Amino acid sequence: MRVGLDVGGTKTDAVAVDDSGTVVARVRLATGQGPQAVIATVLEAVRALRESLDAGAAPFTSIGIGIPGQVMPGTTRVTHAVNLGIDDLDLAAAISPVLSLPVYVENDVKAAALGAYALHGAASQSLSSMAYLNLGTGIAAGIVEDGVLARGRHGSAGEVGHISVDPAGPLCRCGQHGCIEALAGGGAIAQRWGTGAALPVKDVFDASDAGDPLAQSLRAGLAAGAAAAVRVLVLTVDVDTVVLGGGVTNLGDALLSDIRAQLDASAAASPFLRSLCLSERVALLPLGSPAAALGAALLGEARTPEGVLAHG
Amino acid sequence: MRVGLDVGGTKTDAVAVDDSGTVVARVRLATGQGPQAVIATVLEAVRALRESLDAGAAPFTSIGIGIPGQVMPGTTRVTHAVNLGIDDLDLAAAISPVLSLPVYVENDVKAAALGAYALHGAASQSLSSMAYLNLGTGIAAGIVEDGVLARGRHGSAGEVGHISVDPAGPLCRCGQHGCIEALAGGGAIAQRWGTGAALPVKDVFDASDAGDPLAQSLRAGLAAGAAAAVRVLVLTVDVDTVVLGGGVTNLGDALLSDIRAQLDASAAASPFLRSLCLSERVALLPLGSPAAALGAALLGEARTPEGVLAHG
Repeated sequence: MRVGLDVGGTKTDAVAVDDSGTVVARVRLATGQGPQAVIATVLEAVRALRESLDAGAAPFTSIGIGIPGQVMPGTTRVTHAVNLGIDDLDLAAAISPVLSLPVYVENDVKAAALGAYALHGAASQSLSSMAYLNLGTGIAAGIVEDGVLARGRHGSAGEVGHISVDPAGPLCRCGQHGCIEALAGGGAIAQRWGTGAALPVKDVFDASDAGDPLAQSLRAGLAAGAAAAVRVLVLTVDVDTVVLGGGVTNLGDALLSDIRAQLDASAAASPFLRSLCLSERVALLPLGSPAAALGAALLGEARTPEGVLAHG
Repeated sequence: MRVGLDVGGTKTDAVAVDDSGTVVARVRLATGQGPQAVIATVLEAVRALRESLDAGAAPFTSIGIGIPGQVMPGTTRVTHAVNLGIDDLDLAAAISPVLSLPVYVENDVKAAALGAYALHGAASQSLSSMAYLNLGTGIAAGIVEDGVLARGRHGSAGEVGHISVDPAGPLCRCGQHGCIEALAGGGAIAQRWGTGAALPVKDVFDASDAGDPLAQSLRAGLAAGAAAAVRVLVLTVDVDTVVLGGGVTNLGDALLSDIRAQLDASAAASPFLRSLCLSERVALLPLGSPAAALGAALLGEARTPEGVLAHG
């Protein structure tokens, strides 16, 4: 039995996955801040998962952790996890000795991509490649081809959020103008909306429906940025499907309709884009899906393509 | 001994490659127009290659053909090769029976990517992934990871020329505005320059040096579009290196300096981009290099990663 954890800025989602790839237990708890508290959260999540299972359940064989920071390919060290108060931490070095289990670590979006592939691949037998596009505070994608996560060697695979698609667009926190993230990232939208609402993007959608011009412009930028990310992923990597997830996708069908309308408009203008049927190739990750935690659980076996394919 | 052909709109470049991956013979001849004339060109190129070799040279074991058209992954059928007057032609069906050899067919840019990887990989042992960005009449890229060409399943992998990076940019022949190809494609630049010069992009560079404002604007757009393509390739696929080739790169260092200046300017504005050292990761394919013909020769063995890696 494998354990997978999605250690988020406020909550940690933990699952236990059996050999057939099925989630057999799931617990959620608050995430502590700072290296020691994050390690304590991981240990507590593993304990709670164990407790939620029957006494006769199989032992845990590995722990995978998805975490919002940079993880250099092939290492278990996370850096720049600013939302967790972690600057530099080797999670395996801290946790393996305590639990006596192999620990795998991956960026949370890349872990979610593996999980979304397993979830989506199970529903669609013919899926050979997929991008998971995370629309959260920031924007990034994870790319899975034939069951294997594209990691790249410098860690920038899937960083489509910082591709500029409009030189006259808003300034991005990265320093460029018109990045996809500056248009469609939840953080950038909240900042430009400026009301301090608890659910800023939901607030923007509501105000847009009520006719507010700024809200309508922000909402159009969100759809344009997300549609641009879909085009980049299909025209560069030729993924079969782009699965959308992340906090902003809590807006559900209203968001998906906006993005599809943008893709349909560009298809109407361009026979080439029309031939790619982009609008039909985007899908929403089901709300509440444990994609990142499931993907984290699969990390150990994802070192070999065959392992993941067995779960596809 | 393998044969590789780069069947271009006006000229065909043909090489014979020995088992160590070395080009041992090369011939160039004019390309005929239309299906029958193109087949005759291929047969004549193979005959001329044979004639240029010693009588004791090893027999030919396969023929690979790179051709400017759409080739669905895994087939030998080319469609929409408009510059050759070919609408739909199965090259293997036409040529295999005559020469009694296996025939492989690939889009010319993708073939050039394989060849550039073999050429560049031989010089740089640590190269694990590369994009070949073809700056010609149009713009497209071929991506090679660990010696394997990324084909995608729908044939749109590497079609970065039709990613829009400026909604206020010029209309592209594809119907979108501000595509990378509309900014940086030789065809789009020639059309907007409009002098009918034999070497339009060279003419634009000369007029730009002489202070012509339209030429300066077109030249800046070329550099901006090419730099955008480099960013898209690194931020999506995380390739180690982007090798530039195609007719527009006949401009040599003047072009490379322009593109590097654009990448340096965006790095100066963005610490994130600065960390990626993009300017150092672009290189020009040497002028006159037989990349596409060499890559076409490698197509047969490129079906398995090990085969190409042996040449890396």
